[in-house]
Amino acid sequence: MIQFDYANLLADLVGAEHGVSRAEIDQNRAAAARAVESFRKKSESGRYGFPHLPFQEKVIDEVRKFAAACKGRFDSICLVGIGGSALGAWALDCALRGPHPVQKEFGRMNPRLVILDNVDPAFLGAALDSMNPKRTLALAITKSGSTAESISTYLVVRAWLHKAVGAKNIARHVAMVTEPESPEGKVSDLLAMARRESCPAFYLPVNVGGRFSVLSPVGLLPAALAGIDIRKLCAGARDMTHLCWKTELDANPALLPALLHWLLLERRSKPIQVAFSYSNLLWGVAFWFRQLWAESLGKNGRGQTPVAALGVTDQHSQVQLYLDGPNDKVFTFWTAGGARAMKIPRAFSDLASAGYLGGQAMGALFDAERRATAAALAQKQRPNCTFTLPRVDAYHVGAFLQLMEFEVAFMGELMGIDAFDQPGVELGKRLTYALMGRKGFDEYQRQFDDYEKLRRRALG
Amino acid sequence: MIQFDYANLLADLVGAEHGVSRAEIDQNRAAAARAVESFRKKSESGRYGFPHLPFQEKVIDEVRKFAAACKGRFDSICLVGIGGSALGAWALDCALRGPHPVQKEFGRMNPRLVILDNVDPAFLGAALDSMNPKRTLALAITKSGSTAESISTYLVVRAWLHKAVGAKNIARHVAMVTEPESPEGKVSDLLAMARRESCPAFYLPVNVGGRFSVLSPVGLLPAALAGIDIRKLCAGARDMTHLCWKTELDANPALLPALLHWLLLERRSKPIQVAFSYSNLLWGVAFWFRQLWAESLGKNGRGQTPVAALGVTDQHSQVQLYLDGPNDKVFTFWTAGGARAMKIPRAFSDLASAGYLGGQAMGALFDAERRATAAALAQKQRPNCTFTLPRVDAYHVGAFLQLMEFEVAFMGELMGIDAFDQPGVELGKRLTYALMGRKGFDEYQRQFDDYEKLRRRALG
Repeated sequence: MIQFDYANLLADLVGAEHGVSRAEIDQNRAAAARAVESFRKKSESGRYGFPHLPFQEKVIDEVRKFAAACKGRFDSICLVGIGGSALGAWALDCALRGPHPVQKEFGRMNPRLVILDNVDPAFLGAALDSMNPKRTLALAITKSGSTAESISTYLVVRAWLHKAVGAKNIARHVAMVTEPESPEGKVSDLLAMARRESCPAFYLPVNVGGRFSVLSPVGLLPAALAGIDIRKLCAGARDMTHLCWKTELDANPALLPALLHWLLLERRSKPIQVAFSYSNLLWGVAFWFRQLWAESLGKNGRGQTPVAALGVTDQHSQVQLYLDGPNDKVFTFWTAGGARAMKIPRAFSDLASAGYLGGQAMGALFDAERRATAAALAQKQRPNCTFTLPRVDAYHVGAFLQLMEFEVAFMGELMGIDAFDQPGVELGKRLTYALMGRKGFDEYQRQFDDYEKLRRRALG
Repeated sequence: MIQFDYANLLADLVGAEHGVSRAEIDQNRAAAARAVESFRKKSESGRYGFPHLPFQEKVIDEVRKFAAACKGRFDSICLVGIGGSALGAWALDCALRGPHPVQKEFGRMNPRLVILDNVDPAFLGAALDSMNPKRTLALAITKSGSTAESISTYLVVRAWLHKAVGAKNIARHVAMVTEPESPEGKVSDLLAMARRESCPAFYLPVNVGGRFSVLSPVGLLPAALAGIDIRKLCAGARDMTHLCWKTELDANPALLPALLHWLLLERRSKPIQVAFSYSNLLWGVAFWFRQLWAESLGKNGRGQTPVAALGVTDQHSQVQLYLDGPNDKVFTFWTAGGARAMKIPRAFSDLASAGYLGGQAMGALFDAERRATAAALAQKQRPNCTFTLPRVDAYHVGAFLQLMEFEVAFMGELMGIDAFDQPGVELGKRLTYALMGRKGFDEYQRQFDDYEKLRRRALG
């Protein structure tokens, strides 16, 4: 269904210093198969839940029912969430309703999705000004139920709704997504808020981290409210899941990319991967991928820095560096079939820059530029590969996201790291708590004071 | 006016392996002064023109007059351009009117800026569907006047306008920006189109490349049409220009950043720079910067890969990698004062995650998170620095853009490279021409055929 072209990762094309040999691939077939088996065991034991998400028919039905009941009531869906709680919804909205700022006219039958994923007051203020609270549904999403940014933003949005619709109507304007109550009866703060004000709540399984949650209510709820067919989305992901459990390298769409990216990262030391989307529709997916790749693999001094790039646009911004700068990157092109028909009109045919274009398909130019860029990269010994989606629709987008989650899981196995934690972010969180005067973080306030002293001394 | 905090780039804070010593800075004061002098000579000789742009009062007036004459006639400004012809306009619009998708309601007195900077038919089709040609002004912008993407897109936009307003009214709906006629009478294809159809034309000086053109009509014309005060923009840039000609390290706002970034790139081998904007308003500027840095410095196997990141958002996406992955980056935070007042309401005060936030300013949280992230990076020996704008307004944005252009010019001098060319992109262009059947590129078609043969053979 989704094709993977890896010829330009091979040593035959880009040289032995920067490419992988067929022999090297063959030598690692067993390691690749072991990665699948090992991850499958962990998934079946219940440790990691993302492979099961698209099979949760009951959850999918509940989300669809809720969205159907909301239909026509709201012209804005205001998502309060950050990181994994926001990026999946943006990826789906951009892919399946088109990129901002060129979406179709919004209204009650086609509500706008406004994502509040930052606490910049300039941004939050402008975002609230752009919505009518009486016709807004707020979705508050945080797995832990206590993320500082999402809680503070939700408090603002809640007060804004209160003022417009009255405190007693708040439950008609809010839905929450968070972890379920634990077997011991522990309830997240967000769930406590939902219960106190009788707001509907949806759940993210405890064994699914934010960046793997797009096919849980975290991504499905905003998608369904935006009118996206989440059944097709999950159907694509289910079909992909079946393929991704295969242990043969050539039958598993996520395994060969994982093996090759692993070899390039760890044996050819390419510290950067460019996700080069030749599709404006997949631009949101590139940012979703950026989190998936960075947080999952970037730990213990290892990992690979993902860069989101847009073709052809970035040919006029980044390709000078990509072709002629340090050879420290692997490029992964994303392209899709099923382009909208559009002809370049014939006009000014006597002018050299217009004559050859008139009468040709715009899609042909788009495609030629991608192929030319891949060829130029190969000629300059820059390894690159290409994923091709038959088209950008719910089925194939669901499949593609699931493919990438599996690829990351396999990368984690091959690298021998835990791709599912993110221990590095704790320090910054604690320092923030200290600076905001939260109780119990005095030690971090002292740390911060020492650091400020050191800074003043260093500057003389 | 714009502050630069570099304490966290110093060895005292991040260690000698990753930071710069005061002695090293002192040793390079003379080299830094020479960089200014050398670049000043080239600029005064007329080789490079960007420092002069904000002083071109006549051009600024012409642009303002044109914008005033357009006032109220259009609800969409449709910019056809790519790379340096588009990124400056986006940067200015995002900074000074707010980021998509939360801008104020658009209309004839506040026209939308739609930037057609890609030839993806799905994107172009949706963009055209979202505009009314009768109320649209198209700006076609290409320095060479023959960029394939912009010419093909302009042909589509022109036909779309023709159909709605009639061929004879086209001049009322189109303006062009391109190179002026050469002293030898050579006219770019875009200028030829403008003349044949009597469309107004504005000019980009020949000694200003696309990525340095934001303060020429390339950026000023769309900005003025969007209602931005381009006189204040240029006033900020002028004041910055005067400062940037100073040869003393501590008096020149662009010189110390250039020296430090150069030392970190070439003596501490940091192949990646993260432009970490703690401002949604400056998100467009981050993409403008990404081109400026990549194309100017990425050549001959050298350069530094710029990454655009948004705070606090990317704390929940990239910071795990930044703190715990490879120590291969230098971080440049951007922050701004003058935040909109917004209080986090008190509610659910008994819940641990909400209690400490209620009653505090949202801006305080935003700021605390940035400072905590900088401190955490320093503690993990990751060099970082911070630019602070007093506020995000036309004056300071103009100054900041000019500062970064000077910084890049000085980096070029320190590195001993030409920061103003982009020879690497030619190969991809020629291969594209060949694939599109343009005459005179048979040699590249043969090259492409050989490459395809090699690919097939490599895949077996």
